[in-house]
Amino acid sequence: MALLVVGSVALDTVYTPKGELKEGLGGSASYFSMAASLFAPVHLVGVVGKDFPAEHIERFKVRGIDLDGLYVANGKTFRWHGRYDEDFGDPETLLTELNVFADFSPNLPPRYRSIPYVFLGNIHPALQLQVLEQMESPKLVAADTMNFWIERERDKLLEVLRRIDMLVINELEVRLLTGVRSVLAGARRIQQMGPKNVVVKRGAYGSFALFGEDIFIAPAYPTLDVMDPTGAGDSFAGGMMGYIASCDDLSPETLRMGIIYGTLVASFNVEGFSIHKLEQITREQVDSRLEEFRKMTRF
Amino acid sequence: MALLVVGSVALDTVYTPKGELKEGLGGSASYFSMAASLFAPVHLVGVVGKDFPAEHIERFKVRGIDLDGLYVANGKTFRWHGRYDEDFGDPETLLTELNVFADFSPNLPPRYRSIPYVFLGNIHPALQLQVLEQMESPKLVAADTMNFWIERERDKLLEVLRRIDMLVINELEVRLLTGVRSVLAGARRIQQMGPKNVVVKRGAYGSFALFGEDIFIAPAYPTLDVMDPTGAGDSFAGGMMGYIASCDDLSPETLRMGIIYGTLVASFNVEGFSIHKLEQITREQVDSRLEEFRKMTRF
Repeated sequence: MALLVVGSVALDTVYTPKGELKEGLGGSASYFSMAASLFAPVHLVGVVGKDFPAEHIERFKVRGIDLDGLYVANGKTFRWHGRYDEDFGDPETLLTELNVFADFSPNLPPRYRSIPYVFLGNIHPALQLQVLEQMESPKLVAADTMNFWIERERDKLLEVLRRIDMLVINELEVRLLTGVRSVLAGARRIQQMGPKNVVVKRGAYGSFALFGEDIFIAPAYPTLDVMDPTGAGDSFAGGMMGYIASCDDLSPETLRMGIIYGTLVASFNVEGFSIHKLEQITREQVDSRLEEFRKMTRF
Repeated sequence: MALLVVGSVALDTVYTPKGELKEGLGGSASYFSMAASLFAPVHLVGVVGKDFPAEHIERFKVRGIDLDGLYVANGKTFRWHGRYDEDFGDPETLLTELNVFADFSPNLPPRYRSIPYVFLGNIHPALQLQVLEQMESPKLVAADTMNFWIERERDKLLEVLRRIDMLVINELEVRLLTGVRSVLAGARRIQQMGPKNVVVKRGAYGSFALFGEDIFIAPAYPTLDVMDPTGAGDSFAGGMMGYIASCDDLSPETLRMGIIYGTLVASFNVEGFSIHKLEQITREQVDSRLEEFRKMTRF
């Protein structure tokens, strides 16, 4: 089934201990789409400036990603520059230029409104609500958010939470949102705020999820050689949502496998800069890593 | 089969956001023994002072732990005071009084020398070697260590590594010992230093292990209510070694299940102060949590 994502499309300049890449394709919607398109047809909603390179448009098209919702506005594309140190922890932000993204107002092409699977990337909660208003009757709406919105737009974010089926969030954000330290207790608190399903990303340690009453804990695939961690969370969400949409099923078994596919796709993503690794891999390669991962986690 | 542990026996005063306990039974050998005795007969080698309370001796005896190797020396028992903040991260050490532990020189009762399973708790590597010299032909020797010895007694520690079958170590210590950040690459580097098996403890995130070529990754059991994290690593090691000794088998399948039992026993341990929870639980309760854990991790 079809999958809609709304989020940022950016030009990232990234420095890591393994190298650097200037003005690579970045942004949450880019990583999400490239990951999800391994599994399901993706429709992207976002905005770029007139300076957005045609080669990046081509990258999306090769993967069959529908760009009718990607608006080309007068002005420059969103740019972000960041640097990771030897620990590959949170990057130091060297530059953020919102440019055309500052005035982003997502208006969906009419044919997008009936898409059943929806991912609201990490944008202003008011814009997430604006997208939701335009959807007819989605089967699954998942959303991401970040510390900035939790701290500054809490009321709007709480309104989003009441209207979505799944929140995808990292562990620090769980604590910020709920004030609770235990990941299990925090995720349960979030369920009380609205979403039946809560997926907590724990970086190199994997993820923790509640699907209603069902508790699922998954480690991460161990990566020998991280090149660039940018987009790990978005490619995780993309792999997960893409897989779920491809099954068109919301049973805990499918949601669990979604988490696993998200984990594996993210493990490929960090092996290259930008979306370079994502655009090279095939579903077969992911499935082969799945077999390896099953062996590593069996007891 | 029988299991020998050498390590500290202490009186701990611990403050956590959930309460405090003064002069509770602590020390690596105490946690290890209480955990391991759920699975196999344990023989403890350590030292206490003349002030060591008889009630603690009784606690060990109730669990069938052999104390012929626990020397009562002239002087006071090792004392440690620590405080955990709201995050339950590394505790702040308020006081360390080595007392009789400062002159600890482990001489084993002759009948201990043929014990097949051996755990060298976190003590000076020279003392770990002294214990090894006295063992006849153990089937499995595992050892713990810490940043202090890695930094200050590296040569002696490297000698220990060449002579053991398994190192149990936390993630930060892997980086300190190898200079490598990736847990997989770091553990492989440690294998080159000697031990065929490397078990990396990752606290609330579970563990990562190499058993020869076999890679095993396990999440932690999600604890709703941590009371006191002290001894989590030692009860993990105790549960693991106790289970392995009870199977008397070194196949990767048994070592994996050892990790899982260690994980579960540690999850009980942090639910109470000192060894209070460990002395209450039964193998049946651990097995019941095992079934729950299997459900939480299946995909």
